[in-house]
Amino acid sequence: MPKPWATLGVDLHLEPTGPGLRRGLTDALREAVRTGRLAPGTRLPSSRALAADLGIARNTVADAYADLVAEGWLTARQGSGTRAAERRVVPPVPSSTLRPQSHRPAYDLRPGTPDLASFPRTEWLKAARRAITSAPNEALGYGDPRGRAELRTALAGYLARARGVRTDPERILVVAGFAHGLQMLGTVLRARGVRTVAVESYGLDVYEKQLTTTGLGTAPLPFDALGTNPEGLTDAGAVLLTPAHQFPMGVPLHRDRRAVVVDWARRTGGLVLEDDYDGEFRYDRQPVGALQGLDPDHVVYLGTASKSLAPGLRLAWMVLPPSLVEEVTSAKGGVETCGVLDQLTLAEFLTSGAYDRHVRASRLRYRRRRDTLVEALAAQAPAVHITGIAAGLHAVLRLPPGTEQSVVQAAAWQGLALYGLSFFRHEAAVTEPLDALVVGYGTPPDHAWAGALEALCRVLP
Amino acid sequence: MPKPWATLGVDLHLEPTGPGLRRGLTDALREAVRTGRLAPGTRLPSSRALAADLGIARNTVADAYADLVAEGWLTARQGSGTRAAERRVVPPVPSSTLRPQSHRPAYDLRPGTPDLASFPRTEWLKAARRAITSAPNEALGYGDPRGRAELRTALAGYLARARGVRTDPERILVVAGFAHGLQMLGTVLRARGVRTVAVESYGLDVYEKQLTTTGLGTAPLPFDALGTNPEGLTDAGAVLLTPAHQFPMGVPLHRDRRAVVVDWARRTGGLVLEDDYDGEFRYDRQPVGALQGLDPDHVVYLGTASKSLAPGLRLAWMVLPPSLVEEVTSAKGGVETCGVLDQLTLAEFLTSGAYDRHVRASRLRYRRRRDTLVEALAAQAPAVHITGIAAGLHAVLRLPPGTEQSVVQAAAWQGLALYGLSFFRHEAAVTEPLDALVVGYGTPPDHAWAGALEALCRVLP
Repeated sequence: MPKPWATLGVDLHLEPTGPGLRRGLTDALREAVRTGRLAPGTRLPSSRALAADLGIARNTVADAYADLVAEGWLTARQGSGTRAAERRVVPPVPSSTLRPQSHRPAYDLRPGTPDLASFPRTEWLKAARRAITSAPNEALGYGDPRGRAELRTALAGYLARARGVRTDPERILVVAGFAHGLQMLGTVLRARGVRTVAVESYGLDVYEKQLTTTGLGTAPLPFDALGTNPEGLTDAGAVLLTPAHQFPMGVPLHRDRRAVVVDWARRTGGLVLEDDYDGEFRYDRQPVGALQGLDPDHVVYLGTASKSLAPGLRLAWMVLPPSLVEEVTSAKGGVETCGVLDQLTLAEFLTSGAYDRHVRASRLRYRRRRDTLVEALAAQAPAVHITGIAAGLHAVLRLPPGTEQSVVQAAAWQGLALYGLSFFRHEAAVTEPLDALVVGYGTPPDHAWAGALEALCRVLP
Repeated sequence: MPKPWATLGVDLHLEPTGPGLRRGLTDALREAVRTGRLAPGTRLPSSRALAADLGIARNTVADAYADLVAEGWLTARQGSGTRAAERRVVPPVPSSTLRPQSHRPAYDLRPGTPDLASFPRTEWLKAARRAITSAPNEALGYGDPRGRAELRTALAGYLARARGVRTDPERILVVAGFAHGLQMLGTVLRARGVRTVAVESYGLDVYEKQLTTTGLGTAPLPFDALGTNPEGLTDAGAVLLTPAHQFPMGVPLHRDRRAVVVDWARRTGGLVLEDDYDGEFRYDRQPVGALQGLDPDHVVYLGTASKSLAPGLRLAWMVLPPSLVEEVTSAKGGVETCGVLDQLTLAEFLTSGAYDRHVRASRLRYRRRRDTLVEALAAQAPAVHITGIAAGLHAVLRLPPGTEQSVVQAAAWQGLALYGLSFFRHEAAVTEPLDALVVGYGTPPDHAWAGALEALCRVLP
């Protein structure tokens, strides 16, 4: 005799009739097994008994049991009735134990991440609703490896207008972040016989590693007051640059040097990889247009939503010279890699003007932070010279010689995450080392900014 | 004297006061430039003149102009006033011209894509709203390269319950599709010194190519009435199988042979790659559990949302033996590749029961189609023997010897996209060739299914 239903402790909220009845029953039983209220192995009442108990049709109960057997929540064996499945369901693990065990700093002033608290969730959801509602069915299938046409078209218009990029949608490739794009370009360059990519003396070592993984070496170019010096480019097959806003030094590539780079590319057939990571954020001067606009046949333009919206979207784009489109697309593996719903949402975001509005609001927010940073340093740390402040989400704080390491150490003790400039220096750089901090003012949420600034001033000499 | 504003033809819907006024003006002007109603180079009225014309504060107009200059829609030059930007904005290209020029068939019976018309847009949007609203800020940053903990936790529970997979969230890697996962596994296997991966005699050549790209060769295993025969596995470093539902033959790997595969892996240290592409769709029998459940230390389980939801999501997952987690994660390039919003939405979809409901509804839909396919063939093409129908979204139609090519050709003439079995046969397969069609019944939308079936019966012998 099965245990009477009433004592199984399952709350059933059932509609009196219709298809809702079966679903309500199924949902309630599933929930009971999932949460363990029906322990593994528990024998359920027969469909006849439960139907009588609940005053509903026996078929409804039988159907619900069959659904749950098919889903794996229940098991049915001839002669042993229907039971809650024995399969041990892995209990949900609290997400904190899944995160890499990094000590979370009180304040994070490392550059590279925008203010995530200001991600426009409501606007993004609105755009997502429009995009998901209006997408044609075929958009949900296996798509063009270059990415959705709607997004590439919106990007072509936006990049022409806001960054002076010369392109059409056919030459744009949507990728899952700058690193993903660089990986593909590295693969193509290596296959073309390139061995070395010239890079800047200062930059992110993860990108260097990205190139190394594809079998390429990197050679740093000198850096001076006019920015990166491209005179020594002769024998590289390609060069990776941040022309609009050198990362992390914060200066634009001098106009004459822009010309030198393009001349070199034309003369040697070399390729310029233009990392335009934060081109949207200018404060005190006219925007510096993309280098790509000078020569779309020799420059690959790389842009990203990671700074203007959020890295978590994993959306970036490459504008390719026509001769590279096929090779790079094929290096992508022949299939789309970015979710189409996010792609369509970003397209909607761009064409509706929501992107511009968000960028403008962010620009204002970051500019205010920069201004308070400059003021605070002038008042509290006059020995520190601040540079690279006309644009972007970070600044360089020049320190007295020999003090960088001790300042970074002092910051760590105070729970302030900071990078010294040496963190970004290429190990083969010939440029004389400078003592400095690279301070990202994008990361802290608004409410934490004042505290972060105070903590920073405390550790400065 | 500038052209009077009224003749510029810009409709302005302005709120009488407050911040909405500036935004309304900015939006209206942007739209006018974007759509060409303000032609490139057109000089705008001075901010003083426009403010007077509209009866608003001059600063509001000046601010709107400044915003649009910063966005690149307008230009401002000393002495020449404010003008609509000269930069040629690339006009939107209709998406049809961007699509690869493939002749669109009247009916598509190629396997591999589910019914995209039944993608649960409304339910997905609901889940997206919950996910986006409740996500912590840090979720929007650069994340765990394995994917979001919420999704991996939800998958661990689902896979244990529905597919008998033994795992915890730590060993799950979220990837942008099966091919993306295979590429990483190929890279790791090659780095470990593996040279050849055993594959099935029938399968998708894109996966073979994926392996070839990473430097691996493939060697086909024999196929017979019991499915793929793993006896000859001796010297391969890894084997790629579809154990639950051989693609495209549609049979499960025989129980004895499952044991042979696992024994081989234990004995030689070889790796089994289990492609569980459509494990959710079973009709006439108890689900065939994942091979991975027999030996989680030697089997990599690969699942995907491409068949159960839509390929356009670009979401798939790998369950890795503990010893492989670090290597494969590092082959992923060290960064997350899938958008976190989709990941969080899928997690919400799984835990809320919406995934189960969608799979159950889809199972019913596909099962009905399969039943009508079987009935139609029995009535109209009795010479055709249908197999592989207990599960999945496709069936194999055995044809009289020597007729496959002509049937595929006849189908093409009728606008019916179809693959013959030879399309899926490994070029080095030793199995005797069979004449057959592989008919995918997932792809057509419901309203087109009857027509597709009729067209199919017309071309069958």
